[in-house]
Amino acid sequence: MKFGGTSMAGSERIRRVANIVRRQQEAGHEVAVVVSAMSGETDRLVGFCREAHALYDPAEYDVVVASGEQVTSGLLALTLQSLGCKARSWLGWQLPIKTDDAYAKARIEEIDSAALIASMQAGEIAVIPGFQGLSPENRITTLGRGGSDTSAVAVAAAVQADRCDIYTDVDGVYTTDPRIVAKARKLKNVTYEEMLELASVGSKVLQTRSVSLAMKEKVRVQVLSSFIDDDAPLADTLPGTMIVSDEELEGLDMERQLITGIAADKNEAKITLTRIADRPGAVATIFGPLAASNINVDMIIQNVAKDQGQTDVTFTVPAADLLRTQSLLEERKDEIGFYRMISDDKVAKISVVGVGMRSHAGVAATMFKSLADRGINIQAISTSEIKVSVLIDADETELAVRVLHTAYGLDSE
Amino acid sequence: MKFGGTSMAGSERIRRVANIVRRQQEAGHEVAVVVSAMSGETDRLVGFCREAHALYDPAEYDVVVASGEQVTSGLLALTLQSLGCKARSWLGWQLPIKTDDAYAKARIEEIDSAALIASMQAGEIAVIPGFQGLSPENRITTLGRGGSDTSAVAVAAAVQADRCDIYTDVDGVYTTDPRIVAKARKLKNVTYEEMLELASVGSKVLQTRSVSLAMKEKVRVQVLSSFIDDDAPLADTLPGTMIVSDEELEGLDMERQLITGIAADKNEAKITLTRIADRPGAVATIFGPLAASNINVDMIIQNVAKDQGQTDVTFTVPAADLLRTQSLLEERKDEIGFYRMISDDKVAKISVVGVGMRSHAGVAATMFKSLADRGINIQAISTSEIKVSVLIDADETELAVRVLHTAYGLDSE
Repeated sequence: MKFGGTSMAGSERIRRVANIVRRQQEAGHEVAVVVSAMSGETDRLVGFCREAHALYDPAEYDVVVASGEQVTSGLLALTLQSLGCKARSWLGWQLPIKTDDAYAKARIEEIDSAALIASMQAGEIAVIPGFQGLSPENRITTLGRGGSDTSAVAVAAAVQADRCDIYTDVDGVYTTDPRIVAKARKLKNVTYEEMLELASVGSKVLQTRSVSLAMKEKVRVQVLSSFIDDDAPLADTLPGTMIVSDEELEGLDMERQLITGIAADKNEAKITLTRIADRPGAVATIFGPLAASNINVDMIIQNVAKDQGQTDVTFTVPAADLLRTQSLLEERKDEIGFYRMISDDKVAKISVVGVGMRSHAGVAATMFKSLADRGINIQAISTSEIKVSVLIDADETELAVRVLHTAYGLDSE
Repeated sequence: MKFGGTSMAGSERIRRVANIVRRQQEAGHEVAVVVSAMSGETDRLVGFCREAHALYDPAEYDVVVASGEQVTSGLLALTLQSLGCKARSWLGWQLPIKTDDAYAKARIEEIDSAALIASMQAGEIAVIPGFQGLSPENRITTLGRGGSDTSAVAVAAAVQADRCDIYTDVDGVYTTDPRIVAKARKLKNVTYEEMLELASVGSKVLQTRSVSLAMKEKVRVQVLSSFIDDDAPLADTLPGTMIVSDEELEGLDMERQLITGIAADKNEAKITLTRIADRPGAVATIFGPLAASNINVDMIIQNVAKDQGQTDVTFTVPAADLLRTQSLLEERKDEIGFYRMISDDKVAKISVVGVGMRSHAGVAATMFKSLADRGINIQAISTSEIKVSVLIDADETELAVRVLHTAYGLDSE
């Protein structure tokens, strides 16, 4: 079970969490709980680090920020004990949760689970701070913001859990953001691949890395709300969203929709370089340096060569990397040989996602026609096996999502 | 060097501390720094623990409250780095600082100092969170409130430091609390034994255990203010108070006062059990259970047996333990065989302390007469080799301290 920062914000909420956990144990389950820091706490600690040193040493940053989850893990263990449960905390360095030494953005390599499993089998609820681990140098690491979801999936894999329940402030994964489309429906099931595509395009329910890890380790993940009544059904029967493999899904849900969900992402920015020489290798001079600087280029369009053997190249990068991208390209203006650089961060990427499109043609055509009918201009297109994305003007985001939600028959009755 | 919570309260103050530390390193010293949590932080964390579980598990309490010092140690390391110093934090479990398993009030058993010394010799400033250690079960322990002073002395002993500078919000040890007596004088030197007695009776400058440890390990401790200007003299020449052995003191300071200081302690409570059978073993039935529950009984008075072979027994316990003491005794009322239990927490213990009294008679007589002259009633008396303490009404604390400060010739000109 994993609880986020909103669920851990203060003694009263921690008591609600403890009650949810206790009921799972009473239902006969062995339970490990992964917790986030109280909401706002990590920001507070990061703020202290910035004040201490603008270019902070990530190893010391990790010492500071990992403390937020340490506090909530101890408090949840205490609260569980106050309800009569046996419980204890296991800090990242205690298990240990072994990571690499990429401080502030570490990756989990291995979890030593022997002591953990023994304790759980003895009836003790294990409370584990998310987000933290131990480097090969015996120092605290953290996994990057949102890393507690990844911790939960990794712990679930290490103890070979039947299920990893992620309690959040939403009660599941929806066909789209319910704040945009009132008729959005909660999904009973979604595949890892779909969840990955949804997470990568702005559905903030789970951290992308946690979904990748769940897919790799075959951990069944359930997303559900921590804001439930004390007498609500147990998580075993709660109507959250279960994230499963393709194979399991086929057994569960014969009548799948073609499209599972629609997501909008406003965190992209568009850059166009004009009048680039249309010669072999020209594009490599643009994207090579960006890749070397860990800037993820997403959509790419190269216009058909115009007169004089010149062409325009348009692509998108994360909005947070826009300034860095611009300066990298400006430095290489002569080498790349472009005439102008035009950038626009008032764009949105709208994506339709669904494993169903593997076996059905026409998904993209429906998308393009529905948007065109409403006069929404498509600036770029990208596709994957189970996703079609288009780039549009940010002002048209909500309209586009509503139009597509209806077009693919996702509106609830 | 050790800095308390007031010195670590916020980024600006941590920067002042970092500057003080940096100047010591620039003066050619190898430096380890022990830090407290930001002032107020430990109280906040203790409050969370109490809300979680009234009778909290001390092992989980330690997980929660140790985080305060973890944060400040990381932040001081970062701030030192921002000033161009090499610095790193060493958490209690990393060195490790090995303690026993008495969670929430652990005792340091051994500090593994090899890595620490190597790092310091390589020019790295070591930043160590106070108050925390590692139990034999590989879990976090804390040393009890104020334990950071003890951590500092233990680290100083482990690295065989030339000096342990304790920076506090006062600039030294005074003959008495300057807030009570304006004419209180700062002491240049004080012996371990005197400091122990002063600490144990309410002079809050240093934790008692830290002084015991300094005495045992022969660590020279200097108390001085962290609120100094950036261009103030270095600690080597600062006029703090140096705590040293009897022998060193005799070399330093030939013309000692008879009395070194006067302390008041309002954290005691008085309990009287009436009409106890005056038979062998009766007192053991009272104090045995209290000792078994780690309640420190201080002053004890047994009245001369009255008629019917009965007597009253009066004693003091820490005010924080009063309720627990009462319930322990109430449970054993029949076994002990008392008639009534009367308690009073509006009492104060006033003590005069000085190694000079070893060789001078009449110290106690002066005390009793001075107080009697002002109509202050003495409720109990206890003495040690270098201390005389009396219990009085709490309302008369300030008056008693002023009277005695004058009576022993301690007032400054």
